[in-house]
Amino acid sequence: MIRAGIVGGTGYTGVELLRILALHTHVEVAVVTSRSDVGTRVDALYPSLRGAIDAVFSAPDVAALSNCDVVFFATPNGTAMLMAEQLLQQGIKVVDLSADFRLKNAEEWQHWYGIEHACPALLAEAVYGLPEINREAIKNARLVANPGCYPTAVQLGFLPLLEKGLVDPQHLIADVKSGVSGAGRKAELATLMSETGESFKAYAVAGHRHLPEITQGLELIAKQSVGLTFVPHLTPMIRGIHATLYARLNTDADDLQALFEQSYADEVFVDVLPANSHPDTRNVRGSNNCHISIHQPQGQDTVVVLSVIDNLVKGAAGQAIQNMNLMFGLPEQSGLSTVALYP
Amino acid sequence: MIRAGIVGGTGYTGVELLRILALHTHVEVAVVTSRSDVGTRVDALYPSLRGAIDAVFSAPDVAALSNCDVVFFATPNGTAMLMAEQLLQQGIKVVDLSADFRLKNAEEWQHWYGIEHACPALLAEAVYGLPEINREAIKNARLVANPGCYPTAVQLGFLPLLEKGLVDPQHLIADVKSGVSGAGRKAELATLMSETGESFKAYAVAGHRHLPEITQGLELIAKQSVGLTFVPHLTPMIRGIHATLYARLNTDADDLQALFEQSYADEVFVDVLPANSHPDTRNVRGSNNCHISIHQPQGQDTVVVLSVIDNLVKGAAGQAIQNMNLMFGLPEQSGLSTVALYP
Amino acid sequence: MIRAGIVGGTGYTGVELLRILALHTHVEVAVVTSRSDVGTRVDALYPSLRGAIDAVFSAPDVAALSNCDVVFFATPNGTAMLMAEQLLQQGIKVVDLSADFRLKNAEEWQHWYGIEHACPALLAEAVYGLPEINREAIKNARLVANPGCYPTAVQLGFLPLLEKGLVDPQHLIADVKSGVSGAGRKAELATLMSETGESFKAYAVAGHRHLPEITQGLELIAKQSVGLTFVPHLTPMIRGIHATLYARLNTDADDLQALFEQSYADEVFVDVLPANSHPDTRNVRGSNNCHISIHQPQGQDTVVVLSVIDNLVKGAAGQAIQNMNLMFGLPEQSGLSTVALYP
Amino acid sequence: MIRAGIVGGTGYTGVELLRILALHTHVEVAVVTSRSDVGTRVDALYPSLRGAIDAVFSAPDVAALSNCDVVFFATPNGTAMLMAEQLLQQGIKVVDLSADFRLKNAEEWQHWYGIEHACPALLAEAVYGLPEINREAIKNARLVANPGCYPTAVQLGFLPLLEKGLVDPQHLIADVKSGVSGAGRKAELATLMSETGESFKAYAVAGHRHLPEITQGLELIAKQSVGLTFVPHLTPMIRGIHATLYARLNTDADDLQALFEQSYADEVFVDVLPANSHPDTRNVRGSNNCHISIHQPQGQDTVVVLSVIDNLVKGAAGQAIQNMNLMFGLPEQSGLSTVALYP
Repeated sequence: MIRAGIVGGTGYTGVELLRILALHTHVEVAVVTSRSDVGTRVDALYPSLRGAIDAVFSAPDVAALSNCDVVFFATPNGTAMLMAEQLLQQGIKVVDLSADFRLKNAEEWQHWYGIEHACPALLAEAVYGLPEINREAIKNARLVANPGCYPTAVQLGFLPLLEKGLVDPQHLIADVKSGVSGAGRKAELATLMSETGESFKAYAVAGHRHLPEITQGLELIAKQSVGLTFVPHLTPMIRGIHATLYARLNTDADDLQALFEQSYADEVFVDVLPANSHPDTRNVRGSNNCHISIHQPQGQDTVVVLSVIDNLVKGAAGQAIQNMNLMFGLPEQSGLSTVALYP
Repeated sequence: MIRAGIVGGTGYTGVELLRILALHTHVEVAVVTSRSDVGTRVDALYPSLRGAIDAVFSAPDVAALSNCDVVFFATPNGTAMLMAEQLLQQGIKVVDLSADFRLKNAEEWQHWYGIEHACPALLAEAVYGLPEINREAIKNARLVANPGCYPTAVQLGFLPLLEKGLVDPQHLIADVKSGVSGAGRKAELATLMSETGESFKAYAVAGHRHLPEITQGLELIAKQSVGLTFVPHLTPMIRGIHATLYARLNTDADDLQALFEQSYADEVFVDVLPANSHPDTRNVRGSNNCHISIHQPQGQDTVVVLSVIDNLVKGAAGQAIQNMNLMFGLPEQSGLSTVALYP
Repeated sequence: MIRAGIVGGTGYTGVELLRILALHTHVEVAVVTSRSDVGTRVDALYPSLRGAIDAVFSAPDVAALSNCDVVFFATPNGTAMLMAEQLLQQGIKVVDLSADFRLKNAEEWQHWYGIEHACPALLAEAVYGLPEINREAIKNARLVANPGCYPTAVQLGFLPLLEKGLVDPQHLIADVKSGVSGAGRKAELATLMSETGESFKAYAVAGHRHLPEITQGLELIAKQSVGLTFVPHLTPMIRGIHATLYARLNTDADDLQALFEQSYADEVFVDVLPANSHPDTRNVRGSNNCHISIHQPQGQDTVVVLSVIDNLVKGAAGQAIQNMNLMFGLPEQSGLSTVALYP
Repeated sequence: MIRAGIVGGTGYTGVELLRILALHTHVEVAVVTSRSDVGTRVDALYPSLRGAIDAVFSAPDVAALSNCDVVFFATPNGTAMLMAEQLLQQGIKVVDLSADFRLKNAEEWQHWYGIEHACPALLAEAVYGLPEINREAIKNARLVANPGCYPTAVQLGFLPLLEKGLVDPQHLIADVKSGVSGAGRKAELATLMSETGESFKAYAVAGHRHLPEITQGLELIAKQSVGLTFVPHLTPMIRGIHATLYARLNTDADDLQALFEQSYADEVFVDVLPANSHPDTRNVRGSNNCHISIHQPQGQDTVVVLSVIDNLVKGAAGQAIQNMNLMFGLPEQSGLSTVALYP
């Protein structure tokens, strides 16, 4: 049994890790930390876990985590970078669900996250945990930077087009809609039901922290610089991300449907829907799947890719466990064979 | 492997059976019928099942079901009673999720359902499939009448009080709120999102079909006639039932918390929350659990029981599979150990 | 023109007062205060008011309010009681939408609200602002205590029954469901969309602050002590309250439909629906109406009253303006003739 | 008083016309037709209108409408074109909220709507009722083709850019999200709450009927052909449209904020928000306003315009009444000065 620790077990990604790991036959949840809830039973805070998780929150210190095999950070940005090095030195693998190790450039990280990076030395080593791109590196990684939710949906949607050089990389558009759980479990006016229910809006159009992460990823795929307009939106639902991606073809139309099907033929969690489909976020709710459709409306030179995930699963906890599976040589789907909850 | 057939696979209880059975290690889904979708892949209609169910809808005739070990009816009322006898004669067990075999009295059934009962001979044999009451009978049953969603939540909430004779059985009140999936997957004005979203209402106050079913069950528990005022409501969410139950104590207050905990101590799917809790439907969403709390506000003689379930799981498909597990001698939790999807 | 001041203009009742007063032809909004937003344009915080309200938040001090004719307190509990006396001394009428002046007994107020009452001398003078009961007193009042949202829906539903002495007053039950805007505009975990969306729960079953307010009101109507079990619930929508009321008839059934119709024949904002109706909260959304239905299921001795309001209108701001209209001799509907927003 | 008739009073645009007209001081609702509800009181079907509309549904024939001054068609496509000519001959003005007269080319209409146009002779005369573009023509029109909801939001967002020739007109992108009321009040599986709640999807990417309408409008503004990629989405809320528009600047960046402010300086219903704003659909819910913001992320050459309306008001009934006001020489805001319902 792999002994897993979860630092920051009181946010939505933390409880989602617990939901999935509770049924993972190769993992035992050994430690769950929460600075504010030390001594409280986990299922007292989260009655959804009653009968599934028999643990008590402990303080988030390295000692408590030292007999874990893997530690997941489900913390706000800025915490993992303070503790990762000590854990790695003890031979503990780390999967960071926060943004601390996602950008390779420490200065760029500081620019977007507003604080100095506490552990720039690990940025080079950290492996960006998008298995569909980095599978082999992840298998050998000590430290995985688990991608953001928007970056996962957007990169998986653009990947086949950029890899083949079929579209103009300078004018990519990602119009992305997220459920409100993406904002986390924090007492904030902006995500009250009275503020977000029955309403729709864009936000952070001037620049969202996921922009440099997406750009970095797309440039690695395209092997050149890319220009991306990224507009995130808040949609009145709890789970789900829907990315609507636009790019201009720079050649005559190939059979894009076939291209996408071939690109993802071996991927268990990326599912290219039949031609003319429209993926629906509910069909991946609670599952680790990404559903993708490709359209070329009116035969014009603008291609439209629709890519949907559950932001808390493939966009966070599910992907983290997929990464853990790879890091420990387990079957990639271990613990992740759940079926989406519909309706 | 148990070979299971599902008649009426295109409604919400049908697709929920498929979601759960897809991961049930002792069951193989052999046949899924749908009169209107013969020849269509199941996952074409329900993309949430892509990769999980590899089946094609077939016509709902007895021949096609004849090599099943168990057949689930997830049909509108009036269908199972036409087919059950033939299946039973072939040694196939039947779990009926519709209302056809829930009432013992054929005339009462006709009164509430508006058509003559086609198979009254089986009413006596049919076992009412609430395992917390009828477990032993279910184990030996050929034909199980799976309870309705409202009746499940209400009976489990009243059970300990009536069994012990602690409350006045003549003036029970069940104020119950259901998500809209309880109305089924039917093209109807009344359950459009524009009609039910952001709004709350009672309905069928004059008399709902679940009233005689609940009354019949409560009378068996109380071993006397009961008087019940049952008011169902529609609440703007998809899944979940919340029963708020009121009864008048006819003795001095016992320790009701202890009573409920003892009553359900051995039940894996009925979870009595700590004193002073308020169960939340989200904490059972997608799971087969029933969460219950007991209150006695201001120490008065009115006891309040709060009982929540997922109407499609413990209120339908999950309970049906729980019944199937009992009928086939499997562990009662087989395939039902999922954790609720929160948030 | 009546010059109106609003203290606490940044909560939901404050902005709702502004929405209605913006179109009230006899009122000019002279002052809107907010301690935290002094100097900010009101419509910068609330873009819904752009073009409708041309005002800037000022500090909440008595001097700034001194040339108002009426001041509305849309503040948290505990503020109005500090300022009301000074305003009244200047001849300014006060409508308090908080709970400060709702209870007649200062000790009971302290028990439920947890602080000592700063102005008990005014409790006797304050008129409870439920026009359907207190219309004449309101007309002559200097200080009106505007009822809570739950108390409005519950009292209007029980009124005809208790007035006529038709039901047992010792065992009343009010099972009430509220949209989340009733919790106010505060940064709190419990009312995040991820916490309240797609879920339903009861809360405060042990005792809610509106319980003594409702009881006080019902006892005045019944002219005797009453026993009330009050269970509030949170339903996943923004606006609306649905009260389902239960009482036991102590005489043979009268024509309850006619009784209610007669009781409210002259009330413009209380609308008794035709027999066998089920009021829907959406049909009063944004309006000052209360829709009521009466049922006697299966002809038993339990009567069921369904009473719905918009918690922010008839349950708060609309009723406050109705009271203001009465206090200033205006037609009671002035500014309140809006039609509910459906769908 | 203007005598208004409404043909097709049972859909969402019909009831929205009634909601607004009930308070319009210059209009009397003389006739409301519904083929299926002849003889029924309007407020029996729509209790939200109790006390506001005292009318009974009549059959939709020309005779019944002959003493109206104006007739609104809130009908499915294909009805207005059968009746408009006869009404116009009697001197009755017509505002058609369906699509019958929106396209100038009868063949294109037939291509998208699937039936032959019954009245092509009127297509040339019909004035496209977007007052911000066609105000003078509307004033003199006998027949106004009220724009679709998507076309209104998209055209108002692109207008200043295309008018000034600032963007490449060949590669416009409109990523638009609509609440489900846009699908109308029809018994359909696809818009059940269980199907659309808590989920997000694109639809009709291959081609939506509003595409030719938008293109026709944009070409008139741009005075040249345009290429538009239009992707409509369904978002889990009832009312509201949010258009996110993308275009490539073909000159160095002007002061786009100033441009938009100037373009709409005289428009009462188009409100350009301050720089760096993000309009929210809730802030126009129930009102006839369009809120617009302009962004140029990272100073790149892609401009992003955010344009929001209430699909049933500025996207349908409100705009129809704005057009009626113009046609009858009334102040353009008559009856339309409502404030959005927030929260």
